[in-house]
Amino acid sequence: MINYNPKEWFTFIFRIHKADTVRKLFPMFIALSIYSALIAWLELEVWKLSANSEIKNISLMHGLLGFVISLLLVFRTNTAYDRWWEGRRQWGTLVNSSRNLAMKLQAMLPGTNTEARAYFKVMIPNYAFALKNHLRKTFNPDEFQPVPGEGPVSLDPEKHIPNQLAQQLMNKTMELYRKNQLTGEQLIVLNNELQSFTEVCGACERIKNTPIPFSYSVFIKKFIFFYIMTMPFGYVFSLGYLIIPMVVFIFFVLASLELIAEEIEDPFGKDANDLPVDTMSNNIRLHVSELL
Amino acid sequence: MINYNPKEWFTFIFRIHKADTVRKLFPMFIALSIYSALIAWLELEVWKLSANSEIKNISLMHGLLGFVISLLLVFRTNTAYDRWWEGRRQWGTLVNSSRNLAMKLQAMLPGTNTEARAYFKVMIPNYAFALKNHLRKTFNPDEFQPVPGEGPVSLDPEKHIPNQLAQQLMNKTMELYRKNQLTGEQLIVLNNELQSFTEVCGACERIKNTPIPFSYSVFIKKFIFFYIMTMPFGYVFSLGYLIIPMVVFIFFVLASLELIAEEIEDPFGKDANDLPVDTMSNNIRLHVSELL
Amino acid sequence: MINYNPKEWFTFIFRIHKADTVRKLFPMFIALSIYSALIAWLELEVWKLSANSEIKNISLMHGLLGFVISLLLVFRTNTAYDRWWEGRRQWGTLVNSSRNLAMKLQAMLPGTNTEARAYFKVMIPNYAFALKNHLRKTFNPDEFQPVPGEGPVSLDPEKHIPNQLAQQLMNKTMELYRKNQLTGEQLIVLNNELQSFTEVCGACERIKNTPIPFSYSVFIKKFIFFYIMTMPFGYVFSLGYLIIPMVVFIFFVLASLELIAEEIEDPFGKDANDLPVDTMSNNIRLHVSELL
Amino acid sequence: MINYNPKEWFTFIFRIHKADTVRKLFPMFIALSIYSALIAWLELEVWKLSANSEIKNISLMHGLLGFVISLLLVFRTNTAYDRWWEGRRQWGTLVNSSRNLAMKLQAMLPGTNTEARAYFKVMIPNYAFALKNHLRKTFNPDEFQPVPGEGPVSLDPEKHIPNQLAQQLMNKTMELYRKNQLTGEQLIVLNNELQSFTEVCGACERIKNTPIPFSYSVFIKKFIFFYIMTMPFGYVFSLGYLIIPMVVFIFFVLASLELIAEEIEDPFGKDANDLPVDTMSNNIRLHVSELL
Amino acid sequence: MINYNPKEWFTFIFRIHKADTVRKLFPMFIALSIYSALIAWLELEVWKLSANSEIKNISLMHGLLGFVISLLLVFRTNTAYDRWWEGRRQWGTLVNSSRNLAMKLQAMLPGTNTEARAYFKVMIPNYAFALKNHLRKTFNPDEFQPVPGEGPVSLDPEKHIPNQLAQQLMNKTMELYRKNQLTGEQLIVLNNELQSFTEVCGACERIKNTPIPFSYSVFIKKFIFFYIMTMPFGYVFSLGYLIIPMVVFIFFVLASLELIAEEIEDPFGKDANDLPVDTMSNNIRLHVSELL
Repeated sequence: MINYNPKEWFTFIFRIHKADTVRKLFPMFIALSIYSALIAWLELEVWKLSANSEIKNISLMHGLLGFVISLLLVFRTNTAYDRWWEGRRQWGTLVNSSRNLAMKLQAMLPGTNTEARAYFKVMIPNYAFALKNHLRKTFNPDEFQPVPGEGPVSLDPEKHIPNQLAQQLMNKTMELYRKNQLTGEQLIVLNNELQSFTEVCGACERIKNTPIPFSYSVFIKKFIFFYIMTMPFGYVFSLGYLIIPMVVFIFFVLASLELIAEEIEDPFGKDANDLPVDTMSNNIRLHVSELL
Repeated sequence: MINYNPKEWFTFIFRIHKADTVRKLFPMFIALSIYSALIAWLELEVWKLSANSEIKNISLMHGLLGFVISLLLVFRTNTAYDRWWEGRRQWGTLVNSSRNLAMKLQAMLPGTNTEARAYFKVMIPNYAFALKNHLRKTFNPDEFQPVPGEGPVSLDPEKHIPNQLAQQLMNKTMELYRKNQLTGEQLIVLNNELQSFTEVCGACERIKNTPIPFSYSVFIKKFIFFYIMTMPFGYVFSLGYLIIPMVVFIFFVLASLELIAEEIEDPFGKDANDLPVDTMSNNIRLHVSELL
Repeated sequence: MINYNPKEWFTFIFRIHKADTVRKLFPMFIALSIYSALIAWLELEVWKLSANSEIKNISLMHGLLGFVISLLLVFRTNTAYDRWWEGRRQWGTLVNSSRNLAMKLQAMLPGTNTEARAYFKVMIPNYAFALKNHLRKTFNPDEFQPVPGEGPVSLDPEKHIPNQLAQQLMNKTMELYRKNQLTGEQLIVLNNELQSFTEVCGACERIKNTPIPFSYSVFIKKFIFFYIMTMPFGYVFSLGYLIIPMVVFIFFVLASLELIAEEIEDPFGKDANDLPVDTMSNNIRLHVSELL
Repeated sequence: MINYNPKEWFTFIFRIHKADTVRKLFPMFIALSIYSALIAWLELEVWKLSANSEIKNISLMHGLLGFVISLLLVFRTNTAYDRWWEGRRQWGTLVNSSRNLAMKLQAMLPGTNTEARAYFKVMIPNYAFALKNHLRKTFNPDEFQPVPGEGPVSLDPEKHIPNQLAQQLMNKTMELYRKNQLTGEQLIVLNNELQSFTEVCGACERIKNTPIPFSYSVFIKKFIFFYIMTMPFGYVFSLGYLIIPMVVFIFFVLASLELIAEEIEDPFGKDANDLPVDTMSNNIRLHVSELL
Repeated sequence: MINYNPKEWFTFIFRIHKADTVRKLFPMFIALSIYSALIAWLELEVWKLSANSEIKNISLMHGLLGFVISLLLVFRTNTAYDRWWEGRRQWGTLVNSSRNLAMKLQAMLPGTNTEARAYFKVMIPNYAFALKNHLRKTFNPDEFQPVPGEGPVSLDPEKHIPNQLAQQLMNKTMELYRKNQLTGEQLIVLNNELQSFTEVCGACERIKNTPIPFSYSVFIKKFIFFYIMTMPFGYVFSLGYLIIPMVVFIFFVLASLELIAEEIEDPFGKDANDLPVDTMSNNIRLHVSELL
């Protein structure tokens, strides 16, 4: 995620940032300019169509459908943003559960049990790193810290990684309960946090693996395409060669909304707009180690 | 569900996919073309109506109502999408509960109790398959795995299948509690997951059995129909025979939104846009068997 | 609720269903036709107003306000639909709680306690019937099943019926706890379901008794009325006697949205669009009796 | 709250109700009429501006901004309605918790403990009255019922009243637990209801004390004002003196939406659109006394 | 936060408040006026472009895109408002948890334990002050009250402050449990409140640190800029020098929405529109000290 100051308007407007849709759409801008110029040249200079031609009135259609396409793009924007924000909320839950679990264990465990504290100090943050890499479909065991006095975290890379870590946290807690280091009531008090790890993992997998239904994705793209491609035919009579910047600008607006939506829909990658999951994982490690 | 890469614009725009509404609406496109051509021919060449005719101004109505129909279709789209997404969330909850239940039992059960572990390893995923088939109104006992050492899962196909499986999971858990394999506090900790199976089932039945109120469904279809059928009368004077592609394209946009909404409203089938419940059921089986 | 196949477009469009707003609005269509014809006749043939008259430009106002009225009706539609859907969700919760309570009791109660099982088998579904009739402001004791070995359910028809049934379920559960048929932990596990009955009842009463604020209801009706009644004045000059079908169609669209919203806002009645609470009550009885 | 039958259209349209915005805006209607007439007289008869004047085209701006103002007012309407509806939901929670607490205590307390039953029968409804008056910033001790055998409820009117009552309910419950009239598991079962009283109070205070951000409130009012005041300048050329009713009607629509939003935003007062908190408090007293 | 009476329209409209966007945008108004005047002068008096020029029709684009920009700004407004309101809800939760925790402890602790009461009376409100300053990235130990009989609150200013306070509350509670001042069931009853402190902190950090995705922020600003800067070109032919106030007013509307959204998006500062977190912290101290 890019950290930015939303109040610096001028740098926003004039700099072309790496994540800017202008950059990605630039080749299309060129192609559309040539296409519009060609239509204008044909209609105005080759076929010399009169401004009373019925072709001019194709622009009536663009007026009527302008409303539908705007609403559709706002629907698209809303659903993409909702996923992005839900992804952020889920990671927020992970942060909260990690902190609360650490605090509760710190307060519950007998003062002498330094071994269990050391275990959770390492393993709670490891879960965040495991989830981060799992959502990026990578396996990066270097990011795990080993439990002091034990070897590196034992994991089977062929199996679901976050599940294995959650299982180990669960096992350790139940073992403490069996050894009377935790009472039954304390176990109940820890339950929320313990189960929330796997719930966050499931929710993030859901966001990642379920884009907007295929039909909407196809439909919106087809709609933008035909809307833009038919635009020069009618408007050339009013605008002459000014049609070129107009078509490009309208395409920029419509396509940007679709492009940004595509980018933020899967918020766990390393794109400029993605969530700062690396930073959050490091913060979990920092804060848990302050507590335990 | 179709897995697709939302960034491949060109294949989207030019290929006509199986789930594409263009395919379904094609006969209507032909019929509408003939109808529009007929109106145009009658008005322009048979009756030779003047462009100052009052009939031309029927298009004023299309302008005024264009807002309403767009907003209605967006309302339709939103409600259908919300069901689809809620269906996905419910199955996400099923995934989470299956995993958490497996993890908790793995950690709670005495190490010697391999029989109970084998039981849940088989029966938790069986619930997902039962729910999947129940929502498709089929009964497919072949998809159930038998509990090792017992015969096939005993089920009465006349009764509610998922309820029977949830009952068996509940019975087994209470039996373990009575036999002191689980303590009272552990029972409380397992409660969330145990009751969530039936809650997911109820929510999915609700989504499946409650389409948008009948009156809205009728009203939107009537509205689209009259809106499109009256469109050629007025616009013919501005557009001539260009009215044909214009009516077809506007119909494509409006009817596609209604068609896609109808399709995703019931997300548990086998349509191209439906949720990947088969894959999710298999994943539950895979992940639970990794854990227990 | 009408069960319908949302994909049968043609029957939808051409048949006039019992719940159709066309049927309810028909007298108004006649009245509006006469009114519009009268205005048209006066302006065009009696007063012979010129098409350059300032009266023609009243239609500018309809253009400006078309947007506001559309958005208001969508707001109306959304709030009405949300109540309808929340009503459905609440009944879904009742279904889930009834099933889960039956399952849990079946698993918890000692195998020998057939009397308590018989009690809950009858009384859990009775709650759904009590709630259904309570929401319809009727009292229908014939729909209650008696507890085997006891007389008919003892109820004071002057008092709040669902509360009395919920109290009896609560009393029975606490009695079982006092008699050591249920342990303390099992009581905690049953708590969610027991309290959800009364929560569903309260939520349904809330939906039923709280229509959209009076001011909005008045305002939307006044707005539609003046919008429609002033419409012929300006548009007559463009449309001549075609104003009659246009005004009727626009009125049909605007008034239908308000009418449907009024109907689904209170979803517990017996209207065509209301929720299938009878069916749901019967299903609760069926499924609970399969379980216990 | 006014109880009304939403289906009586005609009384709605023609009667001017007490809560009607027409009544409140009437002085503004007069002022605006005079203002518009003045502008029209100046432009048409004093300065005799030609209809080709550039001033006429000011109306282009009203067309462009018509979208924005409509969308803003819908945003305003939605946020105000959401608060009103959340206020209603919170009071619904109070009703549910009061009932459930009464039911649970009735079932849990030993049959002989009539003193505790009498205590809660009086004190649970007292909380609802305390909250009602607290939200109206009044203190009305006459509405409290005294506990039988004790004097009037002891309260310090300088301190937060609902907190004191919630504390007394909490104290009584813990005392029963210490005296073994309630078991530990029963205490856990009562926890939800006991803490929900204070949660409802906090949520209602939040709704009451947090209107829409100041900047939006200012901005919407400034926008409406300039939009309306500049309207006659351009439209006079098309509408002549018909500008007067048009400006008044558009002002009626825009200002009504803002006025209604202001009124329902704080839903706990005694306005016509406010929630029926008096009725709800009395119902809580009625239903709790039926139960305990 | 400014406390205001939303019904005083006239002061709203004519006074220019400190938080008013008019004040912030004033330099831009001047610049835009000069720019528009320049364009008008060039087109009308230097180049003497005819009103039939194609440049006039650039305004077609502004009509088509007016809708998109309006919807985008409403999307922006909604997301910013949602954060502001969620921030308020989170602080409401903090108020509720503080009160409920105080009430519960007051009722649970043995009457003789004045030391623990004094501890929580001071430390619960300290958490609110810690969170307030943490969200403003300041550390202000003067706002903490010391525990009677102990020195000032011991905190490491290099570490996460609210976490340290939450840890101390947790430690104290577990210590009371270990010393049998609280039973196991009472510990379970206190769990909700204890964990909610850290959950509120996490949620507020999330709101503060996650502005709307960078791409939307850039895109909206670029869109407004080009929309406004191209506006004079086309509209000059209809409006002459009246273009100047029109461009300024439209810019005022569009930029105000973006500016207000930026301001309320981070609601924990000291801006005019920010949440009254100082007042809320003081109220928590007041109410908790009334209770304990």
